[in-house]
Amino acid sequence: MTTFASDNHSGAHPEVLAALAAAGTGHQVSYGRDAFTARLQDVFREHFGDAAQTYPVLNGTGANVVALQAACDRWGAVVCADTAHIHVDECGAPEKVAGLKLLAVPATNGKIKIADVRREAWGFDDEHRARPQAVSLAQSTELGTVYTPAEIRAIADLAHEHGMLLHLDGARLANAAAHLGVPLRAFTTDAGVDVLSFGGTKNGMVLGEAVVVLNPALNRGMDYLRKSSMQLISKMRFVSAQFLAMFEDDLWLRSATHANAMATRLADQVRDLPGVTIPHPVQANAVFIRLPEPALAELHAQFTFHDWPTGEARWMTSFDTTPEDVDALAKATRAALTR
Amino acid sequence: MTTFASDNHSGAHPEVLAALAAAGTGHQVSYGRDAFTARLQDVFREHFGDAAQTYPVLNGTGANVVALQAACDRWGAVVCADTAHIHVDECGAPEKVAGLKLLAVPATNGKIKIADVRREAWGFDDEHRARPQAVSLAQSTELGTVYTPAEIRAIADLAHEHGMLLHLDGARLANAAAHLGVPLRAFTTDAGVDVLSFGGTKNGMVLGEAVVVLNPALNRGMDYLRKSSMQLISKMRFVSAQFLAMFEDDLWLRSATHANAMATRLADQVRDLPGVTIPHPVQANAVFIRLPEPALAELHAQFTFHDWPTGEARWMTSFDTTPEDVDALAKATRAALTR
Amino acid sequence: MTTFASDNHSGAHPEVLAALAAAGTGHQVSYGRDAFTARLQDVFREHFGDAAQTYPVLNGTGANVVALQAACDRWGAVVCADTAHIHVDECGAPEKVAGLKLLAVPATNGKIKIADVRREAWGFDDEHRARPQAVSLAQSTELGTVYTPAEIRAIADLAHEHGMLLHLDGARLANAAAHLGVPLRAFTTDAGVDVLSFGGTKNGMVLGEAVVVLNPALNRGMDYLRKSSMQLISKMRFVSAQFLAMFEDDLWLRSATHANAMATRLADQVRDLPGVTIPHPVQANAVFIRLPEPALAELHAQFTFHDWPTGEARWMTSFDTTPEDVDALAKATRAALTR
Amino acid sequence: MTTFASDNHSGAHPEVLAALAAAGTGHQVSYGRDAFTARLQDVFREHFGDAAQTYPVLNGTGANVVALQAACDRWGAVVCADTAHIHVDECGAPEKVAGLKLLAVPATNGKIKIADVRREAWGFDDEHRARPQAVSLAQSTELGTVYTPAEIRAIADLAHEHGMLLHLDGARLANAAAHLGVPLRAFTTDAGVDVLSFGGTKNGMVLGEAVVVLNPALNRGMDYLRKSSMQLISKMRFVSAQFLAMFEDDLWLRSATHANAMATRLADQVRDLPGVTIPHPVQANAVFIRLPEPALAELHAQFTFHDWPTGEARWMTSFDTTPEDVDALAKATRAALTR
Repeated sequence: MTTFASDNHSGAHPEVLAALAAAGTGHQVSYGRDAFTARLQDVFREHFGDAAQTYPVLNGTGANVVALQAACDRWGAVVCADTAHIHVDECGAPEKVAGLKLLAVPATNGKIKIADVRREAWGFDDEHRARPQAVSLAQSTELGTVYTPAEIRAIADLAHEHGMLLHLDGARLANAAAHLGVPLRAFTTDAGVDVLSFGGTKNGMVLGEAVVVLNPALNRGMDYLRKSSMQLISKMRFVSAQFLAMFEDDLWLRSATHANAMATRLADQVRDLPGVTIPHPVQANAVFIRLPEPALAELHAQFTFHDWPTGEARWMTSFDTTPEDVDALAKATRAALTR
Repeated sequence: MTTFASDNHSGAHPEVLAALAAAGTGHQVSYGRDAFTARLQDVFREHFGDAAQTYPVLNGTGANVVALQAACDRWGAVVCADTAHIHVDECGAPEKVAGLKLLAVPATNGKIKIADVRREAWGFDDEHRARPQAVSLAQSTELGTVYTPAEIRAIADLAHEHGMLLHLDGARLANAAAHLGVPLRAFTTDAGVDVLSFGGTKNGMVLGEAVVVLNPALNRGMDYLRKSSMQLISKMRFVSAQFLAMFEDDLWLRSATHANAMATRLADQVRDLPGVTIPHPVQANAVFIRLPEPALAELHAQFTFHDWPTGEARWMTSFDTTPEDVDALAKATRAALTR
Repeated sequence: MTTFASDNHSGAHPEVLAALAAAGTGHQVSYGRDAFTARLQDVFREHFGDAAQTYPVLNGTGANVVALQAACDRWGAVVCADTAHIHVDECGAPEKVAGLKLLAVPATNGKIKIADVRREAWGFDDEHRARPQAVSLAQSTELGTVYTPAEIRAIADLAHEHGMLLHLDGARLANAAAHLGVPLRAFTTDAGVDVLSFGGTKNGMVLGEAVVVLNPALNRGMDYLRKSSMQLISKMRFVSAQFLAMFEDDLWLRSATHANAMATRLADQVRDLPGVTIPHPVQANAVFIRLPEPALAELHAQFTFHDWPTGEARWMTSFDTTPEDVDALAKATRAALTR
Repeated sequence: MTTFASDNHSGAHPEVLAALAAAGTGHQVSYGRDAFTARLQDVFREHFGDAAQTYPVLNGTGANVVALQAACDRWGAVVCADTAHIHVDECGAPEKVAGLKLLAVPATNGKIKIADVRREAWGFDDEHRARPQAVSLAQSTELGTVYTPAEIRAIADLAHEHGMLLHLDGARLANAAAHLGVPLRAFTTDAGVDVLSFGGTKNGMVLGEAVVVLNPALNRGMDYLRKSSMQLISKMRFVSAQFLAMFEDDLWLRSATHANAMATRLADQVRDLPGVTIPHPVQANAVFIRLPEPALAELHAQFTFHDWPTGEARWMTSFDTTPEDVDALAKATRAALTR
């Protein structure tokens, strides 16, 4: 049964599974020197520009930590939202694996404000302070919101002014693109992003993410960083083949667009119910919702979803969420609230 | 075309791919709380005993580094062979991710000698020396040899006598079992092993390894170690389902037995050729061979395989190596040597 | 000339230098097995109770990072004030050396509020979140304020309730004791503190700090943690001898009491001047003061002191600050403000 | 009573203690911006050349680990002797603090052979192998031997040829200079060394070492590396003042020359006794000696010294070892052997 707990409760898209099966036979050189990964480089360049260099990795935490090491010296610090996945959900991997310090700033609707980046942009010549060397944004954010290209550009400019680099945690980059309705490069390459992760798993892959380096200086040592961070894939063709399937006929965009639409459909049906608050704009594939306690309990008895530490229920949709799933949850919510 | 470069140049076994596809639809709780992973626990317990606790992870380096952290304090050192994967092929991940010190001892045919473990088993109350807390053996070894159950037991006893634990790097554990012709537990659980990795990738999976904890004390914190070491799999069912396929009708054993047989077939055909030396017993799925330089060059022109830093060519076989592949290489070798 | 920049701009107390000289001749076993360090154990036990175990180390960052490692597993997180030295002034050493995650909470007057500790005390069985395993308080704080014994006890109780431990960064523990007018153990051992650092450098030593373990469970591995964190002192007698001098006739308390008195004297003279705000209680040896920009500039031309990122000037006093020094600064401030 | 256990059992030289006392009063800017440290830069430049940049640190392990981080990327490996202090006596600090991998090669008389460096100089474009980026030599070595300038130059040339850097662990650099009878720069700056540590503690200081950067490219980030590695000294004047005293009238050289002479005097008196073997040349201030077990036991009852894991007794001399101390040990040895 479909859940609203997380987009990683969903399975893999049939087209992805078919691509996996097709990639399965015969020998290919391992560790990324295969034909699939070679093609993948070209495909990513079509979307992110000719300078893009793509490094498939195993999971989202790995993608972020590898990318941030490329952006930071051993003494670097990273400005991020206090709701960021790297700060809240990665069990300290940035600190443990890479020795990075995170400077968490209060987010609004999951988004960093430029004034907060500015407030952390000091002490660059003071060895007592881990040197701020990167800003990390999640696009879309943990709260289902999306930065506009102009917002990203403004943060990139501020970062670069201070010799800092801009990283995008794109575990749900596809959902952001679907919401914005612009090409991927419009809010990445063209907005001043230096390095990003491009998520596959949550958007219908079995597993697999990619670090995409847009600023060529960051390619130095990336092969070593990926390997020493335990993110190198031996039979890499199997991740690359999935990504190729995602880019075939824009499956990545179709899936994300669908997931977003399901979230909107859900929010629209419950938004005006008595006692309901939806505190953040519903832009990607998440609906955060505040409900009276009895209604919440009743819904938990029927559906699978998480409560957030801040008190909201979080309903995630994914590529395989159906309108019927959504309508069932909306209906149950209405019933619970009017009882 | 089939290569002899590495068992990770091979694809995935059709039964594995079928299991992946079958696992693909519908929702499952992520991060290992799915039905496939639950069943996997039982399957591993059938092989490794009732105390076994299994933690699927992403790759071999990850499996080793997670397992060794469970076995060592922050100040621990690990005795291993100077040919060990953790020492030679993991880009310093044990040092970088876990801060572990490796005490590499000279191996013979890839195997650690008990006298060398004893030589490193000192200084337990001296804070100047990273405390030896684990011995790590590869089974089968990097050089295609296999420890007997008695050899493992002797090292385990010595380790335990000194308060050290025994880790097995089992990236090719299946090949060892196939060679020994005994149940897995005969040279693991019953031989005093505390924690091991069980390899799936090289034996025909798309990707996936498992850390198997045999000494229950080591379960403490394992969930955290796996996550903070960036080895937690979100859609874990996809790795667990592959493992389940591997254990269905003993696919793991059939595949490893076949790969081993191909290596033996290959070695047997070339062993007595003039100018050939095969320096290590051929027990698992690797043939190391010393050849005159011109013959080596000629074979490199026709086949894909690696030369070892120590001067030998390494020919790896895998589950999908065919007798015809083997015979072609053997024939070409004969031809190259008699020209 | 005396500065107000930091208590580490001051020199060493003559009694400390005399003790150093006296310790200088003859051979003593190194690495802490000397007669001075043995006596030091007893002296610290007089102050902190019979269970106290003392580990001299080299500097304040080292003391904190060694202590926190003893309190946390590899996957641990530490709740601290956003103004804490470990968060702001240690260049990420807790993250880099120990892989620790810091959970910084907003401080009021440099002090953590119990509600904020409670807000971070969640997710103990969730491997996605670095597990909160310690709370770290600075006593006195970076802002010159002091926790009462009752405040510390309340935080200790809350921490222990959740299986967390309590660490005190006591770089200026002496100043806190002097302010509170109670024995050291009243707000440490008797208030539930598990481990603390006791600062020597800022209170008149050449250099040297001590980690004091009050909860015996934390002694496990401490020798290794100190050494592997590069904080073991080879000729340890020279640090221990300084500490012994500090405890001779309560030099530590006399010095801190004097420094505190100088801060109070300074604050009292300027507090009511027009345009002056003193935002925090002046309890230890720091005066934070907000001044009109022209007056600030004029004072910078005559005296050495730091401006804080938050906009205040910080005036630190130390054991060797004289009433004349203080009065000169106060007089200049008055003059600058009335010009 | 004088021991032969270690040169760090000795106290501090009276001239050093006098300098400490003289530096003790008045305020100085902390963290190295004081007048003593400024002068120290000049003094070191007189010895090591105009490009030398000096970073005082707290202890020898710290000096080595800070220096090696400057020489290596996050994925770097360091070739060192299997008897090296960084490998044997630093509790894994290079691995733990800096994530470095050590490639230990078998030493002869404590010295690395160039063939062994060459054997490790491979795999530079292979991310599976931590990239060899530095060679680390101890000068003098752990076994009391000394590299000639030509030997160092040859290793430096080989290292540089492969893009590697050369580090000298100079905890006893003074003893090496005293033995060689050449200026310090002759076997450092002029021999191709990129970065070194210069030891103060074992040669008569209270504590203090210095990282000296000879290759200017390595200055990048050094302030941050020192701080984040917990080796920054707040009242740095007290370490710098000791170093200045060491360079006054060549105290460093006089002390080391004396210590070396005492070792030679000792070795010369026992070398030809029956049953004695002195396996390494006695060049610096260490005598390694193999003795029949009963004689060894008898000497242990009268004198303090360490037995080495390899079976020899190690007798260290220091700046304050007297001819009478030496003659007493020699006499007791003679007596024990002829009983």
